[in-house]
Amino acid sequence: MKTQVGIIGAGPAGLLLGRILQAHGIDAVVVERRSRDYVLKRIRAGVLEQGTVDTLRKYGVAERLDREGLPHADMKLFWKGERHSIPMTGEGGRRMTTYGQNKIVEDLVLRREADGLPLIFDAEVKAIENVTDRPVIHYDHNGEAQTLECDFVAGCDGFWGVSRKHMPDADAHSFEKVFPFSWFGLLAEAKTSTETRGFCHSERGLAVSSSRGPDVSRLYLQVPPDFDMASMSDDQIWDELSLRLANQYGKTLNRGPIIDKAVVRLRGFICEKMVHGRLALAGDACHTVPPSGAKGLNLAVGDVRLLSEAIVSLLQENDDSKLARYPDLALQRIWPTVHWSCTMSDVFHIFPGQTAFDTRRQYEVLNFWAYDETGQRVFRENMLGRPLPQY
Amino acid sequence: MKTQVGIIGAGPAGLLLGRILQAHGIDAVVVERRSRDYVLKRIRAGVLEQGTVDTLRKYGVAERLDREGLPHADMKLFWKGERHSIPMTGEGGRRMTTYGQNKIVEDLVLRREADGLPLIFDAEVKAIENVTDRPVIHYDHNGEAQTLECDFVAGCDGFWGVSRKHMPDADAHSFEKVFPFSWFGLLAEAKTSTETRGFCHSERGLAVSSSRGPDVSRLYLQVPPDFDMASMSDDQIWDELSLRLANQYGKTLNRGPIIDKAVVRLRGFICEKMVHGRLALAGDACHTVPPSGAKGLNLAVGDVRLLSEAIVSLLQENDDSKLARYPDLALQRIWPTVHWSCTMSDVFHIFPGQTAFDTRRQYEVLNFWAYDETGQRVFRENMLGRPLPQY
Repeated sequence: MKTQVGIIGAGPAGLLLGRILQAHGIDAVVVERRSRDYVLKRIRAGVLEQGTVDTLRKYGVAERLDREGLPHADMKLFWKGERHSIPMTGEGGRRMTTYGQNKIVEDLVLRREADGLPLIFDAEVKAIENVTDRPVIHYDHNGEAQTLECDFVAGCDGFWGVSRKHMPDADAHSFEKVFPFSWFGLLAEAKTSTETRGFCHSERGLAVSSSRGPDVSRLYLQVPPDFDMASMSDDQIWDELSLRLANQYGKTLNRGPIIDKAVVRLRGFICEKMVHGRLALAGDACHTVPPSGAKGLNLAVGDVRLLSEAIVSLLQENDDSKLARYPDLALQRIWPTVHWSCTMSDVFHIFPGQTAFDTRRQYEVLNFWAYDETGQRVFRENMLGRPLPQY
Repeated sequence: MKTQVGIIGAGPAGLLLGRILQAHGIDAVVVERRSRDYVLKRIRAGVLEQGTVDTLRKYGVAERLDREGLPHADMKLFWKGERHSIPMTGEGGRRMTTYGQNKIVEDLVLRREADGLPLIFDAEVKAIENVTDRPVIHYDHNGEAQTLECDFVAGCDGFWGVSRKHMPDADAHSFEKVFPFSWFGLLAEAKTSTETRGFCHSERGLAVSSSRGPDVSRLYLQVPPDFDMASMSDDQIWDELSLRLANQYGKTLNRGPIIDKAVVRLRGFICEKMVHGRLALAGDACHTVPPSGAKGLNLAVGDVRLLSEAIVSLLQENDDSKLARYPDLALQRIWPTVHWSCTMSDVFHIFPGQTAFDTRRQYEVLNFWAYDETGQRVFRENMLGRPLPQY
């Protein structure tokens, strides 16, 4: 099979890239290792920056988002038994919107399928050959070896994907911090009470309660790195959530059936080597944020906007100057955003060996964000997201 | 001997407290463990917040400060071969002033002596008796045991002083972080070049260059915690300073005789138990900052302003309500200031085991302070200092 752009990975990055290229009349094939069912049901983050919403609108995949997305007018931080609300409306009405990443993926998959464009699930990429000239993607599909000849390959296959392995000296260009804890992420059929919604610093560890719809709650618990999901019953999970989020605030958590559970290790990672010949990385394939900033999806959308512009320029005008600038430009946004996500992690978690002095310093940062005008600005500007650099 | 207020320690806190009480017609005796010569020659920090300058003026001990103090119109931060200047003028013309703490001590000592007020050097306090009722300070002077009966005792004898030991359960109310490095502080007879003045993040460790007068430089090097001053010759010290501060910036450091050397371990410490009966702590006796924020003296002056008001109220109006509120009020300023000083230390030093990811996060903070409007505001507001809470 042949195409102009081979896209590895049907997450938000790969699917959105396909959609933007389609708008520019460029053919693409998306190959995805997982099954269609798995991809559509994979629960991830769900807080969109304004730039992400604007991009999805611009490319005509925001119909359901505009209908179901919930405006996020403030963020609630709580610690030491007190709750504090930070207004979240930025200049020009910029705001955050709650809309699950899984819905964005579904919107993009259904749209791509409706348009009859190639999207191959259960396709495991084995190698990318001839990356510097005329790349060929080798993948297995239904037990058979397949090839996809491309003018360009976009690696959108996440932190664990194969694309980054084709970047020469990727390790030498990589920076990483693995946090000494994980998040236990939960999706529950329970109304999210406005009284318990927010980011909570607790001496028992971080807890987060957010809404994913009128009757669906998204919840997180800080757990040890080697945490075994099976070690807690649903009742124990609700009890622990209540201890951290509700009891000391005199509130009650709405309980309900837990319909999804996953444990993710917190990690900050950046590979600065994002382009090699006719291969470029975008999204989690070249950077990972701890989920505490809800930035992973938003960073990926920014990457894809910059990369799609570079690919259009390369394939339609034979101009590779934007591609050459893509990493530097993207990293201008990636580094401060990864740093912010790590800062949120630093402030809200209990670390092994943490002293009372360390905890009080966390409270000082929270005080600053909650009560100080400049601190509120710092928090708001970071949560609303940085502007995308322009070529 | 008898007095109204026994002041332990002739540092800036104790001497200024004596001066303020004098202005309110309250008698005090200052007892100091060290010799007069030692106290006058002890080199410490030298950057004054506006509130400190205003206080010294208000109590008539700013004549030389107004003559010799150098305005600090900006702060220069440098890292990765680039230098960045952050404007330092705040609202209402608030600014920082460079004026050595040793000069403030000298101004206060000379003034106290000229006024014929008691100031006893070489007086080592052995115990404070009867703290909850009618305190008695027991001290040795010229080999003889002496007593000082007081209505009130102010412990201004620093981190290592005896006063805090008389606070019940001081340890249970204390918070501490000891940083894994020290500062090697140097005073040199060398003109400070504007080209090398500033705070420098270097892969070899922090370096600071500041001015203490037209022909005197104050310099600091990050060194290991167990650093032996005798291990470096003056030439080696200048070479190391040049490597960190000058060479990679294409500049040359002005060298000259090094006239003072000291090594201090970086430490953040707060004892929240600041009042017990008729004993109160102020300054380093109840909190220590790492010197990276130049906040120690400024915090002490704030404490003394609040404490003097409480003592006046207690002794002249028999009203102990301000004394009861003194710790909470002072801590509102102490905690964020200690946190800021620790943050400056976190950002500018190389820590044992620091990874490339950690270093890049330090650069992100420096980028934010130097280039981002909100970041500049954060930096400026913290360096200019927090307003003193009012009773």
